[in-house]
Amino acid sequence: MLDTGVYGLKVAVAGTGLIGGSILLRLREAGLDVRGWDPDPGTRDHGRQQGLAFADTLTEAVRDRDVVFLGGPLSSLPDTLIKVAKSTGDDCVITDVGSTKSTVAAFALGNGLAHRFVPGHPMAGTERAGLAAAIPALFDGAAWVLCPAPDGLISQFRTLATLIIEVFRARIVPMTPPVHDSVVALSSHIPHVLAGSLAGAAARSPVSDAIIGLAAGSFRDGTRVAGTPSRRTADMLINNREFVLNQMELVDRFLADLRAALRDDDVEALTGHLGESRSLRESLSSRPMQPVTRQFPRFGPASAELDFLLRLGESGGHLDGCSTDDSTVTYTALRPA
Amino acid sequence: MLDTGVYGLKVAVAGTGLIGGSILLRLREAGLDVRGWDPDPGTRDHGRQQGLAFADTLTEAVRDRDVVFLGGPLSSLPDTLIKVAKSTGDDCVITDVGSTKSTVAAFALGNGLAHRFVPGHPMAGTERAGLAAAIPALFDGAAWVLCPAPDGLISQFRTLATLIIEVFRARIVPMTPPVHDSVVALSSHIPHVLAGSLAGAAARSPVSDAIIGLAAGSFRDGTRVAGTPSRRTADMLINNREFVLNQMELVDRFLADLRAALRDDDVEALTGHLGESRSLRESLSSRPMQPVTRQFPRFGPASAELDFLLRLGESGGHLDGCSTDDSTVTYTALRPA
Repeated sequence: MLDTGVYGLKVAVAGTGLIGGSILLRLREAGLDVRGWDPDPGTRDHGRQQGLAFADTLTEAVRDRDVVFLGGPLSSLPDTLIKVAKSTGDDCVITDVGSTKSTVAAFALGNGLAHRFVPGHPMAGTERAGLAAAIPALFDGAAWVLCPAPDGLISQFRTLATLIIEVFRARIVPMTPPVHDSVVALSSHIPHVLAGSLAGAAARSPVSDAIIGLAAGSFRDGTRVAGTPSRRTADMLINNREFVLNQMELVDRFLADLRAALRDDDVEALTGHLGESRSLRESLSSRPMQPVTRQFPRFGPASAELDFLLRLGESGGHLDGCSTDDSTVTYTALRPA
Repeated sequence: MLDTGVYGLKVAVAGTGLIGGSILLRLREAGLDVRGWDPDPGTRDHGRQQGLAFADTLTEAVRDRDVVFLGGPLSSLPDTLIKVAKSTGDDCVITDVGSTKSTVAAFALGNGLAHRFVPGHPMAGTERAGLAAAIPALFDGAAWVLCPAPDGLISQFRTLATLIIEVFRARIVPMTPPVHDSVVALSSHIPHVLAGSLAGAAARSPVSDAIIGLAAGSFRDGTRVAGTPSRRTADMLINNREFVLNQMELVDRFLADLRAALRDDDVEALTGHLGESRSLRESLSSRPMQPVTRQFPRFGPASAELDFLLRLGESGGHLDGCSTDDSTVTYTALRPA
């Protein structure tokens, strides 16, 4: 299907909240044949009023599609995946947008769908929710994790990578599901735990009212994501429970180091630990990257290709191009220098 | 001296970094007679090039002044306070801008200067430092803590409150030194501990590079103040050591509650705890305030006035007006409804 180019792909989006809705809007804007579906009839009506193609049933939405994006809450994914797989041909590529990857990847494997399902996670969002909040540019420049299948069926990964880079202008970060879940525990989930603990400690303090009166920029920044709907945050943490609990131990140990230096009145030790934090923080905005181009045979064993992709993601790099001709796949990437 | 109005006051600023420099700039902009001094000759030259009046010695800077602001690092305050007190008349009001208040207040009391020294803390700042980074509007709308003397010598407090409200357009928050230090431990210092721990944990993680690649908005917000110069943060924490260690226990307990709910896979309990955090966070931006006007006799015992002021600060309120006539002082304030 890649031979017709990604703009010839027929796509469906099942579950059109903030993320799924933004995917749908961008695909339409780019001129692709795209059909939406959402379990909520009000959302379907709202979509049609915006001139979007919406089907009344999931089966109807995904029939004859080349690619299906699964939106919707994490808990809905197993059911939807099974239904979509039954209603589509074996060469239809299915991906999802859930915030954790191990559970859904294991489910796909256990149900014989690993060859068709490429777990995905676009790292974008806002505090808002629903199709009404969706915007087509949501993924511009954002990281979008894709988990290539370990068994060598890599053409689905290539199709999605090309589509997502060309149409959504996102940065593709290839990772295995457990590496993804371990990384997002620290890069996305634990920040919610710490923001919640700071705001919660202030709420329970006897001088709570005065704290609100004197809230500095550090307090406002440090509690911002505590304003996220509580149930949504709880679901996110529960879904990545093992990795969050595990990575929290790194936070505990660092906190213990800071506390020991403070207790000992040891300004040198304290400055040293805070210097480690500062270096990490600075590399967020100023990490030099270098361009890389790699080619692999289009057909045959893909273990070298897979190895390149997974090392790229683990090193903090990303793909910014993927093209395929009769015999060769060419990746362009940026990785830390 | 209040009878001539605050615009007739002669003021000095000793120590003209970011905060002291911004005070100096704003006083000059407002047309007051103000003189600066800094231990660094380069800073004095830089100030003069900007057309500011700078003295070469501290004694010369503060001689004949009605009000002296002490800028400079916390460690310099005791020395500077003694020198300024010796070089000025007994009716000269001295205040400081340090980020903790108990230590300097105890020092002033121990040196017989409690009747002339009103500990202060303007809650404003930027990541930058030095006179070159100073801006006259830095305190517009900011909270500015002042600690009225407990022994009833309250006219100095009134003078400063009027000056700071009228000239700097800041919100005066009256507090005792220990209440201030306890509040800022949570509203300003512990956020640096948590930001440092999040960034530090990421730095020490085996997937550190990948975390930087996938850093979400929550991670960026949660680590922002980890970018502050490490020594400055270490000094700030060490200076409020007891209160920071003490208030960290509230954070520990909340963190333990979140972790227990997560470990037990108890989404209801987790949602409940996060709901406490969310309520506190929402009250940051949407706490209804009501106006209050109170009058007290200008002379005589000030215990009722002191009581009003300290309750106002503890309740999360602030003064937005202070005026004095022959017999009466009038405060206007906003406090949580």
